[in-house]
Amino acid sequence: MREFDEKKFEEPTLSREQIFHGQIFRVVKDLVSLPDDTMATRELVFHNGGVAVAPISGDKLVLVGQYRKAFEKFIYEVPAGKLEADELGDPKAAALRELEEETGYTAEQLVEITSFYGTPGFSSEKTYLYFPSGLTKVENPRPKDEGEFLEMIEVTLPEAKTMIEEGQICDAKTIMAVWYWELKNLKAQGDLDA
Amino acid sequence: MREFDEKKFEEPTLSREQIFHGQIFRVVKDLVSLPDDTMATRELVFHNGGVAVAPISGDKLVLVGQYRKAFEKFIYEVPAGKLEADELGDPKAAALRELEEETGYTAEQLVEITSFYGTPGFSSEKTYLYFPSGLTKVENPRPKDEGEFLEMIEVTLPEAKTMIEEGQICDAKTIMAVWYWELKNLKAQGDLDA
Repeated sequence: MREFDEKKFEEPTLSREQIFHGQIFRVVKDLVSLPDDTMATRELVFHNGGVAVAPISGDKLVLVGQYRKAFEKFIYEVPAGKLEADELGDPKAAALRELEEETGYTAEQLVEITSFYGTPGFSSEKTYLYFPSGLTKVENPRPKDEGEFLEMIEVTLPEAKTMIEEGQICDAKTIMAVWYWELKNLKAQGDLDA
Repeated sequence: MREFDEKKFEEPTLSREQIFHGQIFRVVKDLVSLPDDTMATRELVFHNGGVAVAPISGDKLVLVGQYRKAFEKFIYEVPAGKLEADELGDPKAAALRELEEETGYTAEQLVEITSFYGTPGFSSEKTYLYFPSGLTKVENPRPKDEGEFLEMIEVTLPEAKTMIEEGQICDAKTIMAVWYWELKNLKAQGDLDA
């Protein structure tokens, strides 16, 4: 990485109009100052962020199917959920909670694979993606969130890759989990070959 | 995939309130009917969707750095942009346009690697991710969008992986492009070994 003055790209807020303060996100419209001293508007969605867990047990990945109203489609995703206000400093605890609520599993350990912005152009939503180890079934798992209807399945890596091709898996975090799983397997294979 | 009645998970809209109709997205609040005949609200962001291109030339990937107001950070991403209303049926043309505007490169061919929803919980934004072949510099490239200030760099795969670890690359489409690039390299290596 070469040295470079990032400061000159900043976009100071000249004024902010609050458009919507909902349960899930907040929408604002900012007037900002650009590097060439002209002005522009920025439409922004603020969101607490979320957590996602790729629960792999043996050669199977646990997925939950659910209906996504934003694009009117039933799809399969890794267990995930949004961070509650009191969980912002502890995404791992939120990830364990979502894993248990959505699948009935818990994990001995969660390793953070990456964290990412899903739609950096307008949203502050950041998602933490974890791979668990030591998965076990919980005897009396916490109940699902109200209004959440899920279908749990377990798939192999080749099955997951087919589901990506066929569009049954079609969200960023789940495609990332599957590709990371494949990378891990290929690297393990390379180590065995070496 | 086992047979399964997805229909029962649908969430018919009982009523819709329009909250905001901006330049970049539209926000609505829906009252929906759930599978158990209770009701719930859904806060949704509708967006035309976007395109992203991972321009690899030799052993280097071209990235563009820009300031992202939603989380007040300067980050590096693969060239990308939103679909204009007249491009909805032709994302490849939009991808070539963005590639040229942001980097001055064009490509002989674009291969679609995947398409994905970045934040399926509330947004309809779908992004098409392409890998180009036959990259060449355009002599008089189309100018950047107004109000867009970019910094172009070229990085190797190990450099890109370090940038992910250090958070300079931190958005879904760019992490996906880097992981896919690594998968491609590992598979090519495996074929050579075999």
